[in-house]
Amino acid sequence: MSEHDRGGVYSVPGKAFTRDERYITDRITADGSGEGEWPVAAGRYRLVAARACPWANRTIIVRRLLGLEDAISLGTPGPVHDADSWTFDLDPGGADPVLGIPRIKDAYLARFGDYQRGITVPAIVDIASGEVVTNDFAQITLDFSTQWGAHHREGAPDLYPEHLRGELDELMRYIYTEVNNGVYRCGFAGSQQAYDEAFARLFSALDRLEDRLTGQRYLVGDTITEADVRLFTTLVRFDPVYHGHFKCNRAKLIEFAALWGYARDLFQTPGFGDTVDFAQIKAHYYEVHRDLNPSGIVPAGPELLGWLTEHGREALGGRPFGDGTAPPPVRAGEVAPTSI
Amino acid sequence: MSEHDRGGVYSVPGKAFTRDERYITDRITADGSGEGEWPVAAGRYRLVAARACPWANRTIIVRRLLGLEDAISLGTPGPVHDADSWTFDLDPGGADPVLGIPRIKDAYLARFGDYQRGITVPAIVDIASGEVVTNDFAQITLDFSTQWGAHHREGAPDLYPEHLRGELDELMRYIYTEVNNGVYRCGFAGSQQAYDEAFARLFSALDRLEDRLTGQRYLVGDTITEADVRLFTTLVRFDPVYHGHFKCNRAKLIEFAALWGYARDLFQTPGFGDTVDFAQIKAHYYEVHRDLNPSGIVPAGPELLGWLTEHGREALGGRPFGDGTAPPPVRAGEVAPTSI
Repeated sequence: MSEHDRGGVYSVPGKAFTRDERYITDRITADGSGEGEWPVAAGRYRLVAARACPWANRTIIVRRLLGLEDAISLGTPGPVHDADSWTFDLDPGGADPVLGIPRIKDAYLARFGDYQRGITVPAIVDIASGEVVTNDFAQITLDFSTQWGAHHREGAPDLYPEHLRGELDELMRYIYTEVNNGVYRCGFAGSQQAYDEAFARLFSALDRLEDRLTGQRYLVGDTITEADVRLFTTLVRFDPVYHGHFKCNRAKLIEFAALWGYARDLFQTPGFGDTVDFAQIKAHYYEVHRDLNPSGIVPAGPELLGWLTEHGREALGGRPFGDGTAPPPVRAGEVAPTSI
Repeated sequence: MSEHDRGGVYSVPGKAFTRDERYITDRITADGSGEGEWPVAAGRYRLVAARACPWANRTIIVRRLLGLEDAISLGTPGPVHDADSWTFDLDPGGADPVLGIPRIKDAYLARFGDYQRGITVPAIVDIASGEVVTNDFAQITLDFSTQWGAHHREGAPDLYPEHLRGELDELMRYIYTEVNNGVYRCGFAGSQQAYDEAFARLFSALDRLEDRLTGQRYLVGDTITEADVRLFTTLVRFDPVYHGHFKCNRAKLIEFAALWGYARDLFQTPGFGDTVDFAQIKAHYYEVHRDLNPSGIVPAGPELLGWLTEHGREALGGRPFGDGTAPPPVRAGEVAPTSI
């Protein structure tokens, strides 16, 4: 999501932070026959996902883990959006090469001429009409798992196993309210009291997750699941951005033994770290949120080489891809522009 | 120093940070007979030193190590100064109980009615006339050591030993330009390029000091010296303030093995940590520098209990106070308001 658009979310002086959760809730489903449903069809849709954005990062990871690259193409706006939100400023000519538009906003307006809500990524666009189908980030990745099965690669992991959905849904709700959104609640708190409460709530959740991950390799079961994807995208941004910029500074991620080992383990797993562009992540937050960082200067730290160090988590057992296999290397044209 | 006053130092867009180094360079000397010199006299002067300020913190430490409490009294402005600079807002009635003034600015104006430069702490005030004698922070602590010897406590350490002055002066100059002022150069950089250069310069210096302190307990010789005092006041503020607020974020202090051990060792040495008030330090930087932190919200972190942990530096030998002794506990009325 672009957390800073009109209709999006702002820091309001004196107030706690509240995220605008009104999305376009259409879905792409296997049979596409229901109200507000579009049919799965290879090559029909384009996923627009900025690497900087944690909510978009989820979709890039899941698409890659499941091997949906041939079925759903990927457009990647640059990290620093303008007043009209995310733009394709990194693409030749400043336009998405498939959609032909300079801003994702154009696809929202193609669908709804008077669209008033947040212009956010991830968004899925119907290529032929140029219209946004959905920006409902929480549903998009679940539908990648459950609706696009016919197009999964051989050996794709089951990120949302049916027998674990109750536990996964509950845990992912907790991760969303307490961690994914918890860091924003700290950063955009409109008062000292709202911040202090958000800070306590965030680190209380991290302490619980630290405990949970001390004795087990992954959040649920013994393989990676959608829950791991969702926690990872916040953890990977924690020290580079949330620790300083959002004042989530009781401790750095690297000071949590289990969470840091867990995050490195995932980072080094094909499909996770190879989607991450730390330079874009830092540029986005520090250059876009001028209300928090008026100078727009982007910190040179932190040192990132630690992400590549041994984590020792294999000793906890676990089979990252279950009965499946790791995805092959990132294909040409989809490699993150900046590596560690 | 108040780094943010008119006549003081500002971040200028597009420019590197430059500190205004024009101070009142009068000195208090043993015989007080030279041009711009005032005579040492117990009870005549009051040291005004905000606990939040690193330059003032030096004077509080040295006064205590040398046992000058009876000779030079101490006034302590609160952490959050107004447009007129440091105020005695923590004192009953909002005025210094000895000088009777609400702002240190009044003592500057008593001396020079048209004073145009920075209103800074530390400042030494002649109590009878209410006039500032000097705010030349770099000289004040050296004069405490060299000029006030008749009033040192029994067992006071020699913080500026004659045979080491050449080495100390050179090292202290380096610590000043590269570290004490180096963190400000990062925080108040007016461009990305100025910041990037300041960042590289700061961490290059910290790497050199890390090397130096890996094999030896103190910076020069085998006892604490003025150089240790000067490095300490920046290190103790590093993780609570400079790491996030000034973007000095290649790593936290706690990630430097030797510097972190060294800083803890000093913190736990009587005269150092017992002068530090982390709450005042954080309040000062985050509430005063609204150009860097528009909300004025003060981070709740970092966790500070690590300062009290074992550091193991005794294994390197060294005699903190040389042939002298540690100072007695902080006297009533001079205890820092907030402890860890």
